[in-house]
Amino acid sequence: MNTEEADFELHPQLAADSTSIADGPLSRLLLSEDARYPWCILVPRRAGAREIYALSEADQLQLLRESSELGRAMMDAFAGHKLNLAALGNLVPQLHLHHVVRYAGDAAWPGPVWGRHPALGYDEAARDERIAQLKAKLSPQWAWL
Amino acid sequence: MNTEEADFELHPQLAADSTSIADGPLSRLLLSEDARYPWCILVPRRAGAREIYALSEADQLQLLRESSELGRAMMDAFAGHKLNLAALGNLVPQLHLHHVVRYAGDAAWPGPVWGRHPALGYDEAARDERIAQLKAKLSPQWAWL
Repeated sequence: MNTEEADFELHPQLAADSTSIADGPLSRLLLSEDARYPWCILVPRRAGAREIYALSEADQLQLLRESSELGRAMMDAFAGHKLNLAALGNLVPQLHLHHVVRYAGDAAWPGPVWGRHPALGYDEAARDERIAQLKAKLSPQWAWL
Repeated sequence: MNTEEADFELHPQLAADSTSIADGPLSRLLLSEDARYPWCILVPRRAGAREIYALSEADQLQLLRESSELGRAMMDAFAGHKLNLAALGNLVPQLHLHHVVRYAGDAAWPGPVWGRHPALGYDEAARDERIAQLKAKLSPQWAWL
């Protein structure tokens, strides 16, 4: 673990809006606390990271690998129409990469999900079910929290 | 040029909403025809591509390289507060990756730019100036159109 990783702390806003479910080799995997959409977030455990292009090349490649594995797993698990990927960070500067499975006719379709509706909380059983479906599609490189 | 590339045609909606400005080793580089924001789009020249995770591993890596070079160049050229990166594709299924330089207080800040305002067209001199500023920051791997 290098210094950047030792100093990593999940931004309090991301912590408030999500459940931490696993750690990949680089990133913390979060489930967004909005049950409207299958919505996961990858947060590289690098203190101070803000932009993908400013990560080391090795970290950029690892983030790509984790993102592609996650995206494929989410689309397999939740049978969506389109995956939406985004690194925005206008409100929360800590680098985080959204992965949202979209369905034709979902609550924000065809617009983006951000800022459209207040989050719809999960009940515990639905959250557990969603996490279990995702876990079944991901490789053993993810350490479940 | 492989078959996928030979069969590539830019989606008519992307063609209508942007100016094609260069070709990288993998992607067509577009300038979005919305002068509100420095906004570029990368479109891998792969017929039928819809999701990043479904590209070949070599193409995924090349897209990452092109995206990181472009993102850094745009933030250098336009001195923004935050880069917004997104692959949405709910309206236009052809895989395309948005790069938008954001400023605190810009027209959509801090929300995402998609679907917020009608596009504000460029006048020709302003478009040329924006392209020249970008070109000055990009490497010779881009063939200018």
